[in-house]
Amino acid sequence: MTQAVKVIFKSPEAGCPDHIASAARGASILDAAHGGGVEIIATCGARGRCRSCRIKMVRGSIPPPTVQDAVQLGSEAVRDGFRLACQTKLVEDCVVMPMPPRAEAGHQILGSGRSVTEDSGFVLESGVEKRCVKAKAPVSEHHQTSDHEEILLAAGSVATREMPLDVLRKLAAVLRSEAGEVTVTTFNGRIIDVEAGDTSQHCYGMSFDIGTTSIVGSLLDLSTGEELAAVGSMNPQAPFGGDLMSRIAFAQFDDKKLQTLRVKALNAINDFIREACERAGVSHEHIYKIVLVGNTCMHHILLGIDVSYVGLAPYAPVVRDALVVPAKDLPLKVAPRAQICTLPIVAGFVGADTMACVLATRIYESKEIRALVDIGTNGEVVMGSRDRLVACSAPAGPAFEGAQIRHGMRGAVGAIERVHIDGDVRCTVIGDQPASGICGSGLLDACAKMVDAGVMEPSGLFRRKKLDELPAPLVKRLVKTPEGAVEFVLVWAEQAAKAGNVTLTQGDVRQLQLAKSAIYSGIAMLQHVMQVGNDQLDELMLCGGFGNYIDVESAVKIRLLPELPVDRITYVGNAAALGAQLALLSETERRRATELADRIEHVALAARPEFQEIFIEGMRFAGRVARPGDPGPAASGQPDAVAAAAGE
Amino acid sequence: MTQAVKVIFKSPEAGCPDHIASAARGASILDAAHGGGVEIIATCGARGRCRSCRIKMVRGSIPPPTVQDAVQLGSEAVRDGFRLACQTKLVEDCVVMPMPPRAEAGHQILGSGRSVTEDSGFVLESGVEKRCVKAKAPVSEHHQTSDHEEILLAAGSVATREMPLDVLRKLAAVLRSEAGEVTVTTFNGRIIDVEAGDTSQHCYGMSFDIGTTSIVGSLLDLSTGEELAAVGSMNPQAPFGGDLMSRIAFAQFDDKKLQTLRVKALNAINDFIREACERAGVSHEHIYKIVLVGNTCMHHILLGIDVSYVGLAPYAPVVRDALVVPAKDLPLKVAPRAQICTLPIVAGFVGADTMACVLATRIYESKEIRALVDIGTNGEVVMGSRDRLVACSAPAGPAFEGAQIRHGMRGAVGAIERVHIDGDVRCTVIGDQPASGICGSGLLDACAKMVDAGVMEPSGLFRRKKLDELPAPLVKRLVKTPEGAVEFVLVWAEQAAKAGNVTLTQGDVRQLQLAKSAIYSGIAMLQHVMQVGNDQLDELMLCGGFGNYIDVESAVKIRLLPELPVDRITYVGNAAALGAQLALLSETERRRATELADRIEHVALAARPEFQEIFIEGMRFAGRVARPGDPGPAASGQPDAVAAAAGE
Repeated sequence: MTQAVKVIFKSPEAGCPDHIASAARGASILDAAHGGGVEIIATCGARGRCRSCRIKMVRGSIPPPTVQDAVQLGSEAVRDGFRLACQTKLVEDCVVMPMPPRAEAGHQILGSGRSVTEDSGFVLESGVEKRCVKAKAPVSEHHQTSDHEEILLAAGSVATREMPLDVLRKLAAVLRSEAGEVTVTTFNGRIIDVEAGDTSQHCYGMSFDIGTTSIVGSLLDLSTGEELAAVGSMNPQAPFGGDLMSRIAFAQFDDKKLQTLRVKALNAINDFIREACERAGVSHEHIYKIVLVGNTCMHHILLGIDVSYVGLAPYAPVVRDALVVPAKDLPLKVAPRAQICTLPIVAGFVGADTMACVLATRIYESKEIRALVDIGTNGEVVMGSRDRLVACSAPAGPAFEGAQIRHGMRGAVGAIERVHIDGDVRCTVIGDQPASGICGSGLLDACAKMVDAGVMEPSGLFRRKKLDELPAPLVKRLVKTPEGAVEFVLVWAEQAAKAGNVTLTQGDVRQLQLAKSAIYSGIAMLQHVMQVGNDQLDELMLCGGFGNYIDVESAVKIRLLPELPVDRITYVGNAAALGAQLALLSETERRRATELADRIEHVALAARPEFQEIFIEGMRFAGRVARPGDPGPAASGQPDAVAAAAGE
Repeated sequence: MTQAVKVIFKSPEAGCPDHIASAARGASILDAAHGGGVEIIATCGARGRCRSCRIKMVRGSIPPPTVQDAVQLGSEAVRDGFRLACQTKLVEDCVVMPMPPRAEAGHQILGSGRSVTEDSGFVLESGVEKRCVKAKAPVSEHHQTSDHEEILLAAGSVATREMPLDVLRKLAAVLRSEAGEVTVTTFNGRIIDVEAGDTSQHCYGMSFDIGTTSIVGSLLDLSTGEELAAVGSMNPQAPFGGDLMSRIAFAQFDDKKLQTLRVKALNAINDFIREACERAGVSHEHIYKIVLVGNTCMHHILLGIDVSYVGLAPYAPVVRDALVVPAKDLPLKVAPRAQICTLPIVAGFVGADTMACVLATRIYESKEIRALVDIGTNGEVVMGSRDRLVACSAPAGPAFEGAQIRHGMRGAVGAIERVHIDGDVRCTVIGDQPASGICGSGLLDACAKMVDAGVMEPSGLFRRKKLDELPAPLVKRLVKTPEGAVEFVLVWAEQAAKAGNVTLTQGDVRQLQLAKSAIYSGIAMLQHVMQVGNDQLDELMLCGGFGNYIDVESAVKIRLLPELPVDRITYVGNAAALGAQLALLSETERRRATELADRIEHVALAARPEFQEIFIEGMRFAGRVARPGDPGPAASGQPDAVAAAAGE
């Protein structure tokens, strides 16, 4: 059963009445508007190819931007809560304000090489160009030319002279099969394909974010920027090591095993390509550019580059430069000379995926200092502004994924995802089923609420003294195991999906503390390096899958995140995938990544003498939830987060 | 049994006595000198790497130059009869003059990037450079670099930044296996390989001339220019069509058959690579550059390019440009990123092999007008000087290879190769065996001598009238077949290797006439286009295998070649193979080929209205053998060869 979600459309003109509409969860805001009789113009037919349907989110959580939002509206508008109604899926009740129609010039369909709008600044120029030309086969025996020269003549100044062997091999037949009508495809001016007849309308690309856990991909029309299909699944390498380091350990000094992992990923990507093409009804031979992002390990494995030394100090990559490789060298099943582009790597554990996040969030052009945090088994933090950017990796380990937790599980049906304590414990379980276990977001919520309720000390220890001050149902939940250890019962066996209670052990809490301190200390360390207090940190952007699920208040409470007002903490979605899409649609963005990689300073946490102390302090659950208007720590006499941690 | 050959060493100083030495046929002149106590200095150890042993051929046929002759002595000296004694094999008795020793500076070992001698003008610069550098693996976790950047740092300005994926894949292990000692190989500044340890001494290349009939190859040391091995055999594609057009017909519009031919040639070349490496004791992985030449058909087939339209008017190639392709794309079993370089093509039937001949003979820098003639089933003629170059192809057909001739055979043991008529017929048979048949050179010699003896009319018809004026043994040889046709018996059945007489039929003579007229008319047509009479044609250079076997006097007599004094007709050896070697050793030469291909004007014989008449006239056997000092046709009132042919 799909839930109905309510949308209030505020009138942009003062004094006019609001409209209320509703639609199924997952429908677009545009659907809700049209269903409720609210007129919002969708010039491009709701394909994300113009900006006529833009709205401002007034209340309710602001969904992460899609690449169409980013492309059509620009980063500033996106950050200010503007979205395309056709691209924004309904998640919860919200209030939005449609924008008044603009001059028609602003609504033009996205075309190659033109700036989308005056203010977005994004120019669609993927580097791939298809042009149908009229060529003739050589006719003179005297002044002999060649098929190759005739194509160049017809193509004019579009293409450089060089033509790859694959293309030469089919040229004779192509030139003669459609009366000389030939479509020439170039990438940055170099010919990468020729086809008989006019196929210039079919120009596609794909972007992939290859994570340790999951792979997501997107098929885009390179002439319009439109997303034609989105695909994704778990990374099939997972059976060979759940996290990065065990994946590296599997393939270390063993080329056969490296190839095993490579083939797994390649097959998955080739399956995605086929699936996306089927769903969009396009030919895989019309995919000419692919942008791949991923952490250094995934990047190297997919390219067949030895990862042995990425797993050993100083964890250096084999190559950091952005690469461009023909598809047949991987091989990926697209046009043989399609260009596979990877984004650059900053350091062994600050990979191409982080670069993509930097691109997507445009932190590099921010006047204010912002932070970008990807919480995962290997978290990454980037901090800075247009003046300076620093980055570090924070090895959180797998606790956030429910691993090494007694009743831990991934965020699937049956997992506790929220914990409420008000005299007694009440758990929210994914899918409204009896609880099978607890996932990462449930774990951190549980700890936050237990500290709040006084069942747990800020040090992370279960309360042992003055238990009579607690409500009796809570005391009852602190049970002794046969071994004499204490556990906290979240769900009693009767309500659980399996035999026995779903509990939290003291060991589970320690695992969470190690994980959350890694992230917290990483952020604190970059604040220390930048000499930036919480009050100077304008925004903390959470990205990646996990960031979507955590309760921000709880995350601040247990000091996974620094003590910022919650409205300064935003979820920006799968920024890595978005960045890959931007680099796919724009060579300027792709080149920018290389410039940025050179600029970003890498901070190696473990190599810093002060880190140990910060990390140990970061283990504690403490602090308070800051609210808008609260003074930041600096204003309350704490010059920066390090001092805050040290002075607790 | 090897024959002993006599060499007279003339003293360069007047009045000094000559020395006489002898050595086995096939030995070098240097061997003969040293065996006979004649002191000739061989600074480089007889490896063709210096010019200290140079001699001038004074009498006896001048052997075709080797690449060492060309490289060490320069084209002018080579044309003047200078050779390296260490490279010149004894074929027949000869008189040579050793050159006085020069200043030691002139004798230096060939080094990369230096001009060999002041006057040869040849600079050894293959484009391939190997440099052993001392690199270190990345050490800092803070200021992270990558293996790639450490290699670049160590290599300094030698290499550009880009590194191919194949090289990146092995980089991590290479960097760490010999304490950071890494040999970096570049081609024109781009990294194509890295190896652990110092392998900088091992830098090789191969050149191949892929003919319709045979394939020859050469393994050269790119640092010294030395030839380490020569390989060759029949083209294994031959069973799929003996000549060019039947080879094309086989693969036309049938990709599978094209692949069959391609694989045959690829396998042969890969076998040659293995064989050459074994013989020279070098690793195929140290071969970094390969230059391939061949006619358009062989060129396209080897690269897997469709030849369908090369066989149809206007016989246009798919591509004429010089190509550079990584070895793994063919694939050839050498270093994976070795550069396979093809020379450019002028026209469908004036291919990369002709370009190689142009390079080798340096006809493009000649002050005088010269002609270059490759006699084969598809002959090519290039004519001109530094001011203008024209070229045509002359489709001679397979008669010169003994095909479509009743008793025709290739030039193998048992083939009649020379015919002498002096009252009766005496034949020289290859290998001094009873005759099995007649090869191309025997065929044209037979016709020349038969015209001379009056057994055949200049029109090519066997004599029918006034037979009583001929010696009786000759008349006896004009026999009637049961069908009533006349044949000329070259060898009576008793002396033949097979049952029955070895004869020449009227049809055989017609085949030869068609073949020889194609070449003769091709030359005449270019003379017409250039407006050049025989007296202005300074040299006619014969190249290719067949040119070596024909009797030049007979060739002029039957008008296969124009009526030039025989000392203006020289045999320049396998110029295509030599040109490929030059392009292998010098990027300047390779680039020059592209410039030249643009300059050469293609003359399509069949498309010229005047050709028909020239060709029919060229069918006749006529003319006289010109001798040194004879006035050329122009001097005798014939303005050019066309007029000569028309006015006969």
